[in-house]
Formats: sequence, C-alpha cells, structure tokens
Amino acid sequence: MRIVVLAGGIGGARFLRGLKQAVPDADITVIGNTGDDIHLFGLKVCPDLDTVMYTLGGGIDEEQGWGRTDETFHLKEELAAYGVGPDWFGLGDRDFATHIVRTQMLGAGFPLSAVTEALCDRWQPGVRLIPMTDDRVETHVAVTLPDSGSAAGSGERKAVHFQEYWVRLRASVPAEAVVPVGAEQAKPAPGVLEAIAEADVILFPPSNPVVSVGTILAVPGIREAIADAGVPVIGLSPIVGDAPVRGMADKVLAAVGVESTAPAVAEHYGSGLLDGWLVDTVDAGCVERVEAAGIRCRAVPLMMTDVDAAARMAREALTLAEEVRAV
Amino acid sequence: MRIVVLAGGIGGARFLRGLKQAVPDADITVIGNTGDDIHLFGLKVCPDLDTVMYTLGGGIDEEQGWGRTDETFHLKEELAAYGVGPDWFGLGDRDFATHIVRTQMLGAGFPLSAVTEALCDRWQPGVRLIPMTDDRVETHVAVTLPDSGSAAGSGERKAVHFQEYWVRLRASVPAEAVVPVGAEQAKPAPGVLEAIAEADVILFPPSNPVVSVGTILAVPGIREAIADAGVPVIGLSPIVGDAPVRGMADKVLAAVGVESTAPAVAEHYGSGLLDGWLVDTVDAGCVERVEAAGIRCRAVPLMMTDVDAAARMAREALTLAEEVRAV
Repeated sequence: MRIVVLAGGIGGARFLRGLKQAVPDADITVIGNTGDDIHLFGLKVCPDLDTVMYTLGGGIDEEQGWGRTDETFHLKEELAAYGVGPDWFGLGDRDFATHIVRTQMLGAGFPLSAVTEALCDRWQPGVRLIPMTDDRVETHVAVTLPDSGSAAGSGERKAVHFQEYWVRLRASVPAEAVVPVGAEQAKPAPGVLEAIAEADVILFPPSNPVVSVGTILAVPGIREAIADAGVPVIGLSPIVGDAPVRGMADKVLAAVGVESTAPAVAEHYGSGLLDGWLVDTVDAGCVERVEAAGIRCRAVPLMMTDVDAAARMAREALTLAEEVRAV
Repeated sequence: MRIVVLAGGIGGARFLRGLKQAVPDADITVIGNTGDDIHLFGLKVCPDLDTVMYTLGGGIDEEQGWGRTDETFHLKEELAAYGVGPDWFGLGDRDFATHIVRTQMLGAGFPLSAVTEALCDRWQPGVRLIPMTDDRVETHVAVTLPDSGSAAGSGERKAVHFQEYWVRLRASVPAEAVVPVGAEQAKPAPGVLEAIAEADVILFPPSNPVVSVGTILAVPGIREAIADAGVPVIGLSPIVGDAPVRGMADKVLAAVGVESTAPAVAEHYGSGLLDGWLVDTVDAGCVERVEAAGIRCRAVPLMMTDVDAAARMAREALTLAEEVRAV
C-alpha cells in the first residue's frame, strides 16, 4: 500500500509514528511543510522537516515534541553572551549540527529535497520525506502589535515571520492574515506529484490546517494533484471539542475566517479535496453536518496520548479510506 | 607606552597575558596571524585570533591552551553521526558560537577586522586585537604523503592546509615548503600600519617564526613598516635548547632552511628587522653569536610556566628595548 501524508510538525510526526506501527509494510511518502523554515544565525532551519525526521528516527525530545533528546544549549548561551539574537528560538547543540550540515549542502548547490534525503540517510525515518518544494516559501502573519504607549486601538501593524508569531509572540495577538510568501511561484519538489499520482490513499494528519497542511496545498499543483488522484483522501481533525489539540490553530483559523470546530475545518478543506474526515468522539454530534457537506465522517478517539493511540487513529483513517473506496 | 605585538596562537596569547600583568597601563595592539584560518562546515574559523581573545578574555581552556573552558562536543558528535568531516579539528559547542557569529557578520559584508572588534566587545581582552589582513591568506604546506603500498621514496606530493599538516598529520612528515597563499596580494588590515608607526616598542613573542610571525611579516608593508618604525624591535626565542618550547616549529623551520636553534631564528629575522633577542638561560652560550649578527642579546628564563613567568619575560623584553633605545 502506497500512502502519501501531508505533514506539519509535532502532530504530523506523532501521527506518522502511529501509521508506521499500524501498517509496517506500507510505502509511506511524507510531503513536509517548509513554510515555517527560517534563517537563524546564517543557518537554514526547517523545523517541520526536522521534527518528522527526529521523531521517526528516534532522536526527538519526547516531552516537548521538537528538538533533540539529551540536548544541551551551550552554543545558544554563547550567542546570547555575544548579544546576537534572536534568543527566543530554542536551538540546541545537537540540533545545530543538522542546520550546519543542511546550510553547507545548500551552499554547495544541492536542492533542499536532496539535502533532506541526505540527512534522512542518517536518521532512517522509515518513510520517504520530501519537502513540499525546493523553492523558498515563508509563512508570514499580519499582526497589530500593541503600542508601549498604548492608546486603545492604536498599535503597529506589521507582518512577522510565522515562527516569530508562534514562538516569540506565542500567538498572543490575533493573526489578521496568514500569507505563504513565495508559494505562488513555488514548484512542487521532485517526487511530490509523482508520489501523489501513485498513492493508494492520501492522509491529512491532525496538523494545522492553515500553516501546515494549508501551506503545502498552496504550492501550485499539489492541491490539484490530490483532487485528481482518484484515491481516498482522509483527514483527521486537529480540533477536538472546539479547541486545538495542541498549538494555537484557532488563532490562524480565525485569520482565514474559519471557526475552530472539527466540521468547520472539514468544510474549509471541502468535498472537492476531502473524501473522509475523522472527528473525536466528543464531536460525534457534528458527523451529520460534515456528511451533509459531502464528506464521509466518523467519530473516533483522536487524542494521540501514545504511539498505540496514534496507531489506532491511523487504522481508523485507513478503514474510512476503504469505506470511501467501496462506495 | 604603546606596544605592538605580532602574535600567533598559544605562545603569543600566553606571552600577552604576561605582558598585560607586567605593564597594566600600556596601550597594547596585537597584530594577529590569520594564515591558519580555515573554513570548516561552511564556517570561518580563526584559531590564532580566537586563542588570543579567549586567553586574554578569560575563556580559554587553560590546560590545552586553545578552545573554550567548560566545553562540550555534542555538535561535533552529531556532525560525525551525519558522516560530515573533517573530524580531526576539535570544535566545541561553545567555540562554534564564535565561528557562527563571525561567519554571519562576514556574510553580511563586514571585514574580518570589524568582526574581530565586535567579538572582542564581548571578551574585553584588554588589548586591541587586529587581524594582520582582511584579505584571505591561507598557509599551505607541501608534503609527501607515504603511499599505502609504499615502495621507499615513492609517495604522493601535495599541498595541504596548515591545519591539516599541524592538527591532522601532527607534522609527522617533513614540511618541504611553507607557502602563505594569498599573502602577496594581501593588504594590512586597517590600523595595522598606523599602530606600528605609533609604537614605542615592537615585540615578537615566542610564537612560531615561520607560520605565525613569519606569515604576518609576509603581508606586504608590514615588515617594511616595522623595519622603518625607528623603535626597538625585540623578539623572544621560541626555541629553547635546540627544541621548540611547544608545537613543531622545528618542522617548518627546516622547510625554510633554518636550523632549530635560538641564534638561527634570530639570524633568520635578521638585524635589519630585529634589534634585540632573548634566549633562554640554557642557550646563554649563543649570546655572542647573536650579537655578532648585529642583534643585542640576553639570556633569561624563557619557560612560560605560569602568568608570573610570562610577566617576567615581558619585563626582560622591555628592559632590553630600553637598552637598545639608549644606545
């Protein structure tokens, strides 16, 4: 079975670990979001690709879900001592090696997809991990930062890098718009469209529908290829009981005018793209609404408390795919 | 008192620490060797500048004389796990920060002299540290590497970077030639010639006369400025009792046809450049030979066993400078 998964960071990575356990013999291609990539200290950092790679390769910090296990932060301490920022992005000593190797290879002329393959040679994630594009796409968020003087309603309107919004500001101000800068001019990386065309099933894990899966779909050709693939496309809701399972998806959903509910996210993807949608059992009441939108829907437990739970979710998604295929 | 010191790495740095203790109110400008700079993992590494900066700024690993105190090597371990070399150069996690900041500033268009000044803002070495040049100079060593098959006399003749000769090969094969590649086209960094012209005394610490002091003198204009400064130029022998105090200076002295003795090094610099020369007490027998070459010479203890010993050496050098001046 050939499975294509569109993945963001932590949620996507943990779902993938469950999927590998559920169907160990499947041929899994992961199309990774690169819209949250950032240049820090002259180095190219790809947080979502690395989270998938480290999680599936056994190098992840399990507790926080990103970064390396057994990590130290001496280099970061020294950068701070030099007064060189930003200081809000948590790069550890071991993690830095990945960014140094990546930056050196990019500088030598290799595209990001080739670099990612080389990094995965070490990590052996057991999936084929491809960045959505080799071109530069950078998700920016329009915000109004409160004035320090702060008359009500005043403030500085500006666009910040997604990481600055997410990590530095911790989504503490509303996202007024989310723009994947460069996406319109980007081309899918080599292998992306081929993997979609050859897939038996396509999965959207419970990743952020705007800044993770949405950014991947914003690369011209990917959405169309998925819609035209003629195989079941199944998603898992990242919203459980009107709140994101993790992260701050509600903030960026508001920016695109979508309410933070499981059925609203399904409708946002739309029946032209999505064939099946899993919601959590607490959202069982909305199954009818989703199905009325032309998307087959089931309510199952969607909390990835451990790998077994993620594997059960993956099996439910594949079961729903078979139902869709049988229609 | 304005003092200019031409410094290599460990020997130069330790001598400078003694000099600062001996004359705390002196205005000291250090012209640092950059011929042993190397690009590693896409980063610009300046071993001699950093050794001076860390030693005088209190960040040096005292025991080994280079690198940072309280250092860890997690990043390096990870690079090895990625199969990315070289693995023979010891870069620690804390040390990496210096190279990352430097590389980022160079990439932003700052010359090495401005970058070095910025790094010293943190370390406050108590001297003005200027690289000999902002241009790229890279010391290469011609060697014949033994064949693995190894019929006697056969072997591969090649030029290796000085660091590869020194650190990786540990000077285990003869240096057939030492070439500061790029030196002929290099210009002294801003401030170098001015500092020499305004100096009251110029010192050559017990640094390597070929690949440290010699490389600095190879930048057109520096040797001439020193010879024409009209102030005492005093050197300290890095050779004690026919062997280098540390390092493998004998190997590179042989490459330039100079025997590894204290008087031979003085003659190599020559009376056109050098006014005074300190040899160790074990070499007292060669004082006459040095003076016969037109260089005033004294025999004093030259082992830098601690900061006090280095300070005593610095005082002897300044005393000899006064003797020269009084003539």
